Amino acid sequence: MAKRKQIKFGALIHGVGGNVSVWRHPEVLPDASVNFKFYTEQAQLAEKGKFDLVFIADGLYINEKSIPHFLNRFEPITILSALAAVTSNIGLVGTLSSSYSEPFTVARQFGSLDHISGGRAGWNVVTSPLEGSALNYGKPAHPTHDERYKIAEEYLEVTRGLWDSWEDDAFVRNKETGVFFDPEKLHRLDHKGTYFSVQGPLNISRSKQGHPVIFQAGSSESGKKLAAKGADAVFTGQENLEEAKQFYREVKERTVAEGRSADDIVILPGIGPIIGRTQEEAERKYEEIANLVTVDNALNYLGRFFDHHDFTRYPLDEPFPELGDLGSNSFRSGTDKIKAVAKEQNLTLRQVALQAATPRGQFVGTPEHIANLIQRWHEEEAADGFIIHSAIPSGLTDFVDLVVPILQERGLYRTEYESDTLRGNLGLPVPANRYTDSKVKV
Amino acid sequence: MAKRKQIKFGALIHGVGGNVSVWRHPEVLPDASVNFKFYTEQAQLAEKGKFDLVFIADGLYINEKSIPHFLNRFEPITILSALAAVTSNIGLVGTLSSSYSEPFTVARQFGSLDHISGGRAGWNVVTSPLEGSALNYGKPAHPTHDERYKIAEEYLEVTRGLWDSWEDDAFVRNKETGVFFDPEKLHRLDHKGTYFSVQGPLNISRSKQGHPVIFQAGSSESGKKLAAKGADAVFTGQENLEEAKQFYREVKERTVAEGRSADDIVILPGIGPIIGRTQEEAERKYEEIANLVTVDNALNYLGRFFDHHDFTRYPLDEPFPELGDLGSNSFRSGTDKIKAVAKEQNLTLRQVALQAATPRGQFVGTPEHIANLIQRWHEEEAADGFIIHSAIPSGLTDFVDLVVPILQERGLYRTEYESDTLRGNLGLPVPANRYTDSKVKV
Repeated sequence: MAKRKQIKFGALIHGVGGNVSVWRHPEVLPDASVNFKFYTEQAQLAEKGKFDLVFIADGLYINEKSIPHFLNRFEPITILSALAAVTSNIGLVGTLSSSYSEPFTVARQFGSLDHISGGRAGWNVVTSPLEGSALNYGKPAHPTHDERYKIAEEYLEVTRGLWDSWEDDAFVRNKETGVFFDPEKLHRLDHKGTYFSVQGPLNISRSKQGHPVIFQAGSSESGKKLAAKGADAVFTGQENLEEAKQFYREVKERTVAEGRSADDIVILPGIGPIIGRTQEEAERKYEEIANLVTVDNALNYLGRFFDHHDFTRYPLDEPFPELGDLGSNSFRSGTDKIKAVAKEQNLTLRQVALQAATPRGQFVGTPEHIANLIQRWHEEEAADGFIIHSAIPSGLTDFVDLVVPILQERGLYRTEYESDTLRGNLGLPVPANRYTDSKVKV
Repeated sequence: MAKRKQIKFGALIHGVGGNVSVWRHPEVLPDASVNFKFYTEQAQLAEKGKFDLVFIADGLYINEKSIPHFLNRFEPITILSALAAVTSNIGLVGTLSSSYSEPFTVARQFGSLDHISGGRAGWNVVTSPLEGSALNYGKPAHPTHDERYKIAEEYLEVTRGLWDSWEDDAFVRNKETGVFFDPEKLHRLDHKGTYFSVQGPLNISRSKQGHPVIFQAGSSESGKKLAAKGADAVFTGQENLEEAKQFYREVKERTVAEGRSADDIVILPGIGPIIGRTQEEAERKYEEIANLVTVDNALNYLGRFFDHHDFTRYPLDEPFPELGDLGSNSFRSGTDKIKAVAKEQNLTLRQVALQAATPRGQFVGTPEHIANLIQRWHEEEAADGFIIHSAIPSGLTDFVDLVVPILQERGLYRTEYESDTLRGNLGLPVPANRYTDSKVKV
């Protein structure tokens, strides 16, 4: 096996938490989701830990049953731009839907963030799982899962084309001669496709990392296809080593089959480490978080994955109900998995709901235990790195202060940033401008 | 006459300049339009001068004839969000088109900027003058001037409704009881109109200034109507005192006719002061800027207002050509004025083009001269304040260092911010939440 690249880390910053009840934990600031000081501190902490990136998730539809963080939170483009001004090396990655936005605007906003941050922008292309999104955007219906991915593929083509509008040396800016730019290095896209018709050129040039880093976070069949074809990084939800290895191998193989190098894509499972001085202390911390969840909360949380399905109508302690196709047009890979695990392990509705609402995961234990697991996942090619999503803020502090030094000591993780761009730190190539044949940069 | 409020100031930050050739000036950074450090310094300078706001203009279409700043510049939402992190009191106002965007996204992005900045966001609602914008957004045609304003009016209704989704005391966040919010204080908009159908609720709450401040910058009949009905502030281009007084009176009267108070709208003409220790030095500075413009540049610049019309086809030193309706669907108030002034003063094409490309304006002279003019415009009710757009960066430095202290000395301008919100500093009321009848706040 060739020498592995060092481990990469991202930090998911998500205000009052990605779970239904963790906002009640004594440590959580109750207004964290709209508290800029909190976001600044988390991003600066991740940068202190030499993380590759912070990650801001998103969604386009809420109702009174949505989990607290989703109800009232920062919009990704704005919060990432603000964080660009208070950080200097860490990447800034956010979710933006290709189903409910315009490529000209999105290419501009990520292009502009990429300039403001000096080449640290990343875009997590999602197709929006929630049916209700259509209602906020005056659309007759939420497109089907397959169609959303077709839209996303064309959308990515368009934004990449717009980002190449200006060749890297187009701006001459010669005050003597009065030549501001070379018109031969300005290119109109003239895209006319199935879903989009966009002339261009874009009114912003490429940053020093060429294009923002493209993330993909769907693990369905269509999600993996889109990733292999065009993503630089995958944020995935694999929970055990064997599954993660299989997913990793499959995405790398598909990427190679698309004519790319296996190194052109970075695979980052999300993990939620809970760290204690002893295993017992870590377990106690997990219990403290899990005990905040009521069964009602958990049923509600579970319902969200199935288009806000009302699970209170079923008996709690009988086998998980038969749901047919329900959920297959929203979070498909997630709902398929919930159904499969419930069947396999013969779980009751109560068990499924509580597991969904407070998944324990494997990464609970001492700093050494967690460092060992991370090393193992990395060595066995289950991951190129991880997105850390801590249920409570001290999770990230503990990770940076206690786990990171162990991995640095072992030579598995950087002690200084290699680069000031996100591509540079992730070890990804700078994409050549499609119009500049002779100058392919790596 | 009732005691006037103090004078308000904004600073238009526009990279390599709003004019066709000023980027060649020795003082101008040739990459200023995508230089975050430059934007930071300008915003912090304006904040040092206790300005109410910085202003970022925008456009959605370029071609090889566009002026340098337009070719490659920051997108407003991103740069304003980044500036929020490096400033603390100054307002952050930017242009965003209601013709080529979605109200749910725009309400979120300005709502989020408003939270990040602690209540300092402002949105300049424009309808997009450039026909070519349609080509970048896959639209069959640019809507007519009248239709664009109808769209804008409904758009504003929708965003205001979305901003009121959450009553100010909706978030209970009681960790003991587990109540995060009061569902009775969450409201769905359910808007179904001519142009938009948006359900809501919005996934971000109001900031402490209630809604972002709404700017309007069109001075056409439709523009004035939209301003009177719904804007908090008007950025206008009046160039002489009598015209400015007439515009001011008309907009205030129309605002009152719409059932609002004359104090509910702030009128801010844009001025480009050129400051010297003597009148002669100021004139020399103006000449230095004007001399950078070639006739070709000027014809090209003029063409932009008329849908990129090619003015090189006409003789330069004969009367300004008859253009019929040309330009009336883009910058209508601007093109009407150019035509009228050319006729009135019997100007040649060369004269019209050079005047358009480097308007001298009245605000050229010593700090005392400029302070006197500002005081007069303010006292005679031609303006509530001004947006300062300096051709060269030292224009803003000189204004802050030399003109501001004179106005402070005279008691006409603040020496400290009265508030940390933009509404607070502009003296504008916080809009009541439409669902909170009993709690009208001022």
